[in-house]
Amino acid sequence: MSSALETLKARLADVNALTAAVTIMDWDQQTYMPRGGAEARAQHLGILSRMAHETLTDDATLAALNSSVADSEDDAAMLRVVKRNLDLATKLPSSLVEEKTRLSAIAHELWVEARAKNDFKNFAPTLAKMFDIAKQEAEYLGYTDHIYDALLDQYEQGATAAEVRTMFESIKGPQVALVKAISEQPEIDDSFLYGEWDIKSQSEFTEMLVKSIGFDFNRGRQDTAPHPFCTGWSVGDIRLTTRYKPYLGSVIFGSLHEAGHGMYEQGSPMAWDRTPLAGGVSLGIHESQSRTWENIVGRSQAFWHHFYPALQHKFPSLEKVGLDAFYRGINKVEPSFIRVEADELTYNLHVLVRFEIECDVLTGKLDIKDLPEAWNAKYTEYLGVTPKTDSEGCLQDVHWSMGSIGYFPTYSMGNLLSYQIWSALQKEVPNTTELMSQGQFEPILTWLQTNLYSAGKKFPPKDLVQKVTGKPIGAADYLSGLESKYKAIYNL
Amino acid sequence: MSSALETLKARLADVNALTAAVTIMDWDQQTYMPRGGAEARAQHLGILSRMAHETLTDDATLAALNSSVADSEDDAAMLRVVKRNLDLATKLPSSLVEEKTRLSAIAHELWVEARAKNDFKNFAPTLAKMFDIAKQEAEYLGYTDHIYDALLDQYEQGATAAEVRTMFESIKGPQVALVKAISEQPEIDDSFLYGEWDIKSQSEFTEMLVKSIGFDFNRGRQDTAPHPFCTGWSVGDIRLTTRYKPYLGSVIFGSLHEAGHGMYEQGSPMAWDRTPLAGGVSLGIHESQSRTWENIVGRSQAFWHHFYPALQHKFPSLEKVGLDAFYRGINKVEPSFIRVEADELTYNLHVLVRFEIECDVLTGKLDIKDLPEAWNAKYTEYLGVTPKTDSEGCLQDVHWSMGSIGYFPTYSMGNLLSYQIWSALQKEVPNTTELMSQGQFEPILTWLQTNLYSAGKKFPPKDLVQKVTGKPIGAADYLSGLESKYKAIYNL
Repeated sequence: MSSALETLKARLADVNALTAAVTIMDWDQQTYMPRGGAEARAQHLGILSRMAHETLTDDATLAALNSSVADSEDDAAMLRVVKRNLDLATKLPSSLVEEKTRLSAIAHELWVEARAKNDFKNFAPTLAKMFDIAKQEAEYLGYTDHIYDALLDQYEQGATAAEVRTMFESIKGPQVALVKAISEQPEIDDSFLYGEWDIKSQSEFTEMLVKSIGFDFNRGRQDTAPHPFCTGWSVGDIRLTTRYKPYLGSVIFGSLHEAGHGMYEQGSPMAWDRTPLAGGVSLGIHESQSRTWENIVGRSQAFWHHFYPALQHKFPSLEKVGLDAFYRGINKVEPSFIRVEADELTYNLHVLVRFEIECDVLTGKLDIKDLPEAWNAKYTEYLGVTPKTDSEGCLQDVHWSMGSIGYFPTYSMGNLLSYQIWSALQKEVPNTTELMSQGQFEPILTWLQTNLYSAGKKFPPKDLVQKVTGKPIGAADYLSGLESKYKAIYNL
Repeated sequence: MSSALETLKARLADVNALTAAVTIMDWDQQTYMPRGGAEARAQHLGILSRMAHETLTDDATLAALNSSVADSEDDAAMLRVVKRNLDLATKLPSSLVEEKTRLSAIAHELWVEARAKNDFKNFAPTLAKMFDIAKQEAEYLGYTDHIYDALLDQYEQGATAAEVRTMFESIKGPQVALVKAISEQPEIDDSFLYGEWDIKSQSEFTEMLVKSIGFDFNRGRQDTAPHPFCTGWSVGDIRLTTRYKPYLGSVIFGSLHEAGHGMYEQGSPMAWDRTPLAGGVSLGIHESQSRTWENIVGRSQAFWHHFYPALQHKFPSLEKVGLDAFYRGINKVEPSFIRVEADELTYNLHVLVRFEIECDVLTGKLDIKDLPEAWNAKYTEYLGVTPKTDSEGCLQDVHWSMGSIGYFPTYSMGNLLSYQIWSALQKEVPNTTELMSQGQFEPILTWLQTNLYSAGKKFPPKDLVQKVTGKPIGAADYLSGLESKYKAIYNL
């Protein structure tokens, strides 16, 4: 090992420890922290984040990186990942980073108020500034084709607006048509999924579920948080959160979703723990795994063939509901205004609206003041519903107020990739339906573990998709998967 | 504000953030961390502790400290505290610190094994090395009178072996005599305190208790841990832990004890949050507050006059036990081998044994190989009981295996100070008995808050004791308090 490489690894271990501190403080803030801890927490997070940034980007790290010679495939991959992280961390001038941090704090407050009061006008000037900052970021980060590419690349390395556009072009027609056909069918009754559910029963049942599919509780836990998330600071310590709502699907599919993220994180080789190679490689691929376990596995009839008796036992009001009615209930399609409540089928159409609007604002085709009108027109066209207020329209998401512009398409990429990876899996793990109906998830997890999770960040996301599925990201598996599922459910 | 002072404060804020990270990781390790997180946690803690130490002791901090000019009383106190912290952190050569860290890890493992196997011989050579390191530490730290002074000063600034000896001289005779007189009285029945108690009821009842006495749950919480402790990283975020045992007193008095520590920590002025002035000033004074709320308040008849009906309601098997029997049960005196299970009256005699042995080993009067014999002789003399094995004798405590030599006397100082401070309080808050029997703890907490808690670390501990009680630490209030209490309980 070259001495520069040793130095670099020691610097990165320091960065990793500081990042772990930030992450556990953030986890605690969302799970257990008393209100009185908020002010000190903000100060501590600010200082430790600054230290992590400084340690990553200072001259000593840079010099060590530039002199490092990899003497293994893993180290070569590690140097590539670190170089990208350093590029992303150093290309933006600190004045712009500070301005974004400052403005985000204001924008977030204003957004909360605007959403509560349904007052887009008051938020619009600040939102315009957030988009201006995104434009500046894109120029500093650099791009060859479309300004959107620079922003998207931060979340999904190598992905481009052109690819996203192609992706949506492929799915828009068939999905809009399918949603329309479904809307003409009789509405599915899922009223039995709403009620006052015992908290302890929800917690116990979902812990049993995520343990059964393979989330390792020796190397993780599940707690409660207002907004479910998955986080972690070691391959051996991955934390899920869930929440309890009147809609029973919230806790079930929320837990399965986060456990999908969690099993992906738990699947990195222990030898990479605390190094830049551990963990999921991109937001899109991460989302593909949360959606696999939430939707392809967790919303399948086979899955509930196995687990429904246990669910009925925990929640006796379901004893009068048959398995088929339950299965149809958890897969009810209902175009709505709100993305986070969207069913599997309509979800991507919500994302499409946001992607098109982001592109149009960034390229100057759409003025911020006309955003609500554009938003509502697209909802009417793609989903057949028109938001009555901006609060349930263009003010619903937190992302833009935080400056996360270019983030949304990774949700849809995750949806497509979940089916694409599942198709590859089915070629090598036959009888997935039978396995699931017997509660046998190990062969499925083992395949994902071997082919995807154990790769960590070793390969760029596009290479990994090619390696795992034999082709670049595409809509074919996704569309055929959804069509066969929902045509059966809705007797089309 | 001088520029050097500004620089110093910024450096100290960084140290504080790193220390907060270490502290929250330690809290998480003892409360929620899954087993698989242990290895990464150890690495992260090591790195962040090193960073905190480096940031505190590097040339930039030292230069800023040396050039800082205080322009307020608080800043002058802060500079004094920082100077002491820096002295303690820099006087020991890093080679010795590393050797101690290395040896402690080994010693701890060996101690666990030796205690399990009742094998002092195998632990003795390593224990001798730990005492050698303590001797070297004392020489580097410096002392004028007794080698013990240097070690004790780390935990209780300014306290000396001579003072501790005087303290024990005052209490040894009366306490041994009182314990002996009690041992000739009929044994108190406390069998009703043992059982299988519902966990949720224990948690709810103790949360209600500590909330009632004034622990602020907006700025803290109570969780579960194998060994109860109190920690925190902000005046606004203080964490207690408790545990559930067959002895109901464990959870009740454990919670009250930690809440005493916690209310002291919560009492620092918010303006000092995240500065060296926030928090308790010494181990002895800290322990005085945990013991005040555990023993003087929590084991009083007045306290249970108020809370006993609620306790009986939660734990119906107590309904057949009268208040007086309960009061006598929770104050049962029973000389035993084990310090952590000792009652209020015999506790200091356990500490006396350890103090005398530490002094004798450090001054060469006692050889490590003869330690078990000396230990057992002292237990026989002071407590009237002779440990049958070293596991329930000189191997029972973790402290020496960690190199915490000179620590034990702070427990006894806390016991004495609890009564001394309570006597001062009673002069200004009349009718404490009546207040407690009505569940009115606010006047008591307010007095402690105003006179003691709000002082944080602003005054050295000896000055603070003088300020609050009008005299230096002494045994008079402690002895008269215990005598009147236990003579009544045992009809002496």
